Amino acid sequence: MQHYVVGVDLGGTSIKFGLVAAGEGIVYQTSLPTDAEQGPDHVVTQICNGIRLLIDAVPDLSQIEAIGIGAPGAVSWDRTSVSAPPNFPGWENLNLSKALQSGLGMNIPVVVENDANAAGLGSSFYGAGRPFDSFIMVTLGTGVGGAIIYNNQIFRGATGGAGELGHISVDYEGPLDRAGVAGAAEAYLGQRFLSRHARYQLLNRKDSLLHQMADEDLLNITPKMLHEAALAGDAGAQEVLAWAGHKLGVMLGSAINLLDIRKVIVGGGVSAAGDFILGPARDTMMRFVMPGLRDGVEIILETLGNEAGLLGAAHLAFQATLD
Amino acid sequence: MQHYVVGVDLGGTSIKFGLVAAGEGIVYQTSLPTDAEQGPDHVVTQICNGIRLLIDAVPDLSQIEAIGIGAPGAVSWDRTSVSAPPNFPGWENLNLSKALQSGLGMNIPVVVENDANAAGLGSSFYGAGRPFDSFIMVTLGTGVGGAIIYNNQIFRGATGGAGELGHISVDYEGPLDRAGVAGAAEAYLGQRFLSRHARYQLLNRKDSLLHQMADEDLLNITPKMLHEAALAGDAGAQEVLAWAGHKLGVMLGSAINLLDIRKVIVGGGVSAAGDFILGPARDTMMRFVMPGLRDGVEIILETLGNEAGLLGAAHLAFQATLD
Repeated sequence: MQHYVVGVDLGGTSIKFGLVAAGEGIVYQTSLPTDAEQGPDHVVTQICNGIRLLIDAVPDLSQIEAIGIGAPGAVSWDRTSVSAPPNFPGWENLNLSKALQSGLGMNIPVVVENDANAAGLGSSFYGAGRPFDSFIMVTLGTGVGGAIIYNNQIFRGATGGAGELGHISVDYEGPLDRAGVAGAAEAYLGQRFLSRHARYQLLNRKDSLLHQMADEDLLNITPKMLHEAALAGDAGAQEVLAWAGHKLGVMLGSAINLLDIRKVIVGGGVSAAGDFILGPARDTMMRFVMPGLRDGVEIILETLGNEAGLLGAAHLAFQATLD
Repeated sequence: MQHYVVGVDLGGTSIKFGLVAAGEGIVYQTSLPTDAEQGPDHVVTQICNGIRLLIDAVPDLSQIEAIGIGAPGAVSWDRTSVSAPPNFPGWENLNLSKALQSGLGMNIPVVVENDANAAGLGSSFYGAGRPFDSFIMVTLGTGVGGAIIYNNQIFRGATGGAGELGHISVDYEGPLDRAGVAGAAEAYLGQRFLSRHARYQLLNRKDSLLHQMADEDLLNITPKMLHEAALAGDAGAQEVLAWAGHKLGVMLGSAINLLDIRKVIVGGGVSAAGDFILGPARDTMMRFVMPGLRDGVEIILETLGNEAGLLGAAHLAFQATLD
């Protein structure tokens, strides 16, 4: 008998669903809007609706065996509950496992994990992380997320919150990130921070392509525009991305010194800028890793894209069926 | 039958030896000079001599069952060999396990671990770390060492080198530490760095007690003097220690964000300065830990002193007898 689980990636704007067959990967996927502003009950209903869509879409499917969910916010140690996910108004603490079991009327395991951790696990079993037992995952997006994969498992720390690479400080007098940490990596690499830095850097560089691309309003600059301008040879855009890559390198150097995990996998939307960020990050990182730990240190670009989180969640669901 | 092991703490100037009985702790201890400048063969002979002294000193001792050694430098994953310990001339890579088995003519397990990791394990089973399954250990001495104790075991990373807290950077444009890492915690808190900072800070503060204590030559300043002057109310000495504590706090904030391990145990000679360093470290640390991870964060002073490394090594020896 083929074994099926559902992987869910709960995001601030959309929820992605994948029906995953053991040994085959995603056999069917769909997505629904999160409508987070309508509150947690509505989000739970949306998740249940999406899962039912998957089940209905595969006629010969007798049963799914477990559900795995990657969610933003703090996840409880027992992987059932989610606290205060950012940008989910009214969501304090919710036992998502119970809510889904009840909403679906299915008494199967429902495993919840932090979304960055789920993406790390997805990379480990389906993505760029496959060759490595242990690696550091960094996700460059709105914020800077992270996960530590150690011996093919998520390193969760004492309470389940490990891997907050974006809040490692590279300069105790640096700019504050959203959490109020001075000089945190996110305060340079997070989308809004990177765009803001670009705005100031390019203000007096009228020759930069970014002025045209942003319709003469630098408030419109996005990391995607920076990447496109850099590809087109724009020196200003290249310098801004290199500046961000430098901070990424410092942070990764510190993380490697602490963990002695020498492979780094970088994913997330901003990582599309590729070597414009990762080149300077590599150079800087090597200078910040202590000499005795430098052998084999490497930064690798994740290729899975948005499916990493969904596949990692599905992997946790498969594990739960074995417990 | 009582079970005995030997714990060894291999230092740059002296080697400490402890005969440890299961459930009783250290029943006899001694030390010998390392004479590291005479080369690795001589150091191995010294270790063998010390172990024989312990065995001879306890007349009714029939047999020791294993030996554990904490050593500086990089230790191999299988815990047998030590590479390039700092300040041990001519020592490249040596299988210390085999060398001791052969030198002593005893076919018993000999387990080698990095000295900072051994001290962390000692704290975990015999020191301030006893109440906690997981904690971060920082050792403030000549350098800044560290260990991650996770679920009562050493977190070793991918190759055995994890826990290098002293080389986490808190300022990418800061001063270089001995490994060449800019703004590394050790470049503020390591003994020579701290003394140098004190020298410059106090140069034009003729009212500081340190001028007298150092016989009017600030090159003589030691961390111990700074502590004594601070205790006597010297504002300059207090400010220097607070400056160092601030950097310790930034580094620990980053480490906690990455690991979600919320207990920090601080040992080593410089930690004797206690709250003059740890007070400012606590304040700063809380500002650098992201809000969601702040509950229960705590810095605790290690009380074991020099015995931590020896006891941790003995613990590894006991574990080896069970393998």
